[in-house]
Amino acid sequence: MINICGVHLADEVSLKGIREIVFPKQDESVLHVAVDIGGSLAKVVYFTKDPESGGRLNFIKFESENIEECLEFIKSLLSPKPNQILFATGGGASKYNDLIAEKLHVKMIKYDEMDCLVKGIDFLVRNVPNEIFMFEETPKFVDSTDSYPYMLVNIGSGVSIIKVTSENTYERVSGTSLGGGTFWGLLSLFTDGSFEDMLKLSMEGDNTMVDMLVGDIYGKDYSKIGLKSNVIASSLGKIFKKSIKERQNIEGKDIARSLLYMISNNVGQIAYLNAKAHGISRIYFGGYFICGHSITMNALSYAIKFWSKGSISALFLRHEGFVGAVGAFMQ
Amino acid sequence: MINICGVHLADEVSLKGIREIVFPKQDESVLHVAVDIGGSLAKVVYFTKDPESGGRLNFIKFESENIEECLEFIKSLLSPKPNQILFATGGGASKYNDLIAEKLHVKMIKYDEMDCLVKGIDFLVRNVPNEIFMFEETPKFVDSTDSYPYMLVNIGSGVSIIKVTSENTYERVSGTSLGGGTFWGLLSLFTDGSFEDMLKLSMEGDNTMVDMLVGDIYGKDYSKIGLKSNVIASSLGKIFKKSIKERQNIEGKDIARSLLYMISNNVGQIAYLNAKAHGISRIYFGGYFICGHSITMNALSYAIKFWSKGSISALFLRHEGFVGAVGAFMQ
Repeated sequence: MINICGVHLADEVSLKGIREIVFPKQDESVLHVAVDIGGSLAKVVYFTKDPESGGRLNFIKFESENIEECLEFIKSLLSPKPNQILFATGGGASKYNDLIAEKLHVKMIKYDEMDCLVKGIDFLVRNVPNEIFMFEETPKFVDSTDSYPYMLVNIGSGVSIIKVTSENTYERVSGTSLGGGTFWGLLSLFTDGSFEDMLKLSMEGDNTMVDMLVGDIYGKDYSKIGLKSNVIASSLGKIFKKSIKERQNIEGKDIARSLLYMISNNVGQIAYLNAKAHGISRIYFGGYFICGHSITMNALSYAIKFWSKGSISALFLRHEGFVGAVGAFMQ
Repeated sequence: MINICGVHLADEVSLKGIREIVFPKQDESVLHVAVDIGGSLAKVVYFTKDPESGGRLNFIKFESENIEECLEFIKSLLSPKPNQILFATGGGASKYNDLIAEKLHVKMIKYDEMDCLVKGIDFLVRNVPNEIFMFEETPKFVDSTDSYPYMLVNIGSGVSIIKVTSENTYERVSGTSLGGGTFWGLLSLFTDGSFEDMLKLSMEGDNTMVDMLVGDIYGKDYSKIGLKSNVIASSLGKIFKKSIKERQNIEGKDIARSLLYMISNNVGQIAYLNAKAHGISRIYFGGYFICGHSITMNALSYAIKFWSKGSISALFLRHEGFVGAVGAFMQ
């Protein structure tokens, strides 16, 4: 039996560089490696034999820009065994095809990204204890289940919304370009740092410094249509009213908080509308954007609850960012 | 019969100040004035008697921040007649209630914003020739119609999506905080100017400098799910990969173009999903965000066409930004 290493890597491994990565112990031998190279991050999953437990899956991620570091790491896992196989998925598996061949001298087997996402979630949901949870301030674990249909909302650089009707049947029904890359990209104009640095920044921020609230327009609730005064009427809509001097004093953390709400609310709304259109009541959220971040999960949960009038709960996965890589591994 | 002044004011009147506003001619007398004070703009509609045509409706707008200038203008229309009535709507009608009473000494009759939007669109659609048009590169006028139901998507600072089932029956079914205020607000961090300055800026921009395209991830089309290489995968998702020096050289016009696409595509997608959920095939777009701007209308039209697989066309209104003010006038 495979023993999934259930630690949430976002908490312990920096996105930058490989210094903090724990290499396999000397007495472990790497049997299989899979990589999912997305627009922003490359996610690596590898299986090691462990004399005690039998074996374990290990998870690690790199920025796709630092693809050479990622390949160096994979090389360290594979060598010195000959004829090893690398399972690969994500857009970068095609884009970096030649580079991978040149650096690694492995046989690369490429799998379709959507196939891997669906295979990955199926594996995680069915086999890994405490993989699924709802989130309202704190996680609440949900029993594993293999019921269909469900929506898989993968929030990477962009967002894919996939309707899954059986183990082998799925369709990408929608998506949006407002995803993790939008959050990271816009914030990169103000501050330098990794995606997780940006998430940390958002925790200290106050979106009401830059968002236009219902109360800013009406002076109070818009009671006739049930909009409370603290509802966001226009994301970042307070900025243009500020003087040039005031704008210079706007803090990155407040913009980070606003953008995080903007993207989470929007993805939640579009996911709900698609679920409703297809008569589906289970929505899983995955992808690196979530990154175990409580504000993001609260916002997504709130959006689904708000729009569905409480009839649907957002579901999260402990190995959210690695769904595609797990799928490539399991193919 | 009322003769609507059909000139698109966005083309001739600056948003800043009142210097360019054409005051009513000496031989015209102002009979009624209505104002719709939104989160960003205050829209004024007034009726003047004209010896030749009988009368005409006039349209003018101000930034809500410059509310005192707006009130000065209204005062110039009303004085010196006593006991005049001002019809008012929008959040600012409540917020600035006391200021309006103090400055204008008029009897203000306040109407609900959604009521006014629905009344306004009904009036425009039924009574004004060449009010409705589809847009693909150029406008194509559509015959006036009074058929129900339809969706009214009002893109102001934020967005309201209203399902209208008869002259007097409607419901705000959805909305999004990603609207005109988001576009204007984010751009205000890079450049100073009016909303229309920002729109002009976007015309010169190239979003592919900052957006992550499908081709940037895959190196080519993602053919299996039909995503072409030039499709936007992640809005602004290319920025965080740039070096700090490269980021400093990013041009405001490219960000403007990206944000315009981001918001237009998103509103179009959410509008379509709501129309579909309610079985509605007519979608009108109004609100100041559109501002007669061809790139915006093309993007909204494309989004509706794309998501509905060609079965629905976006409909626009020549007096888009003034729908609420016209409604207040007509109450």
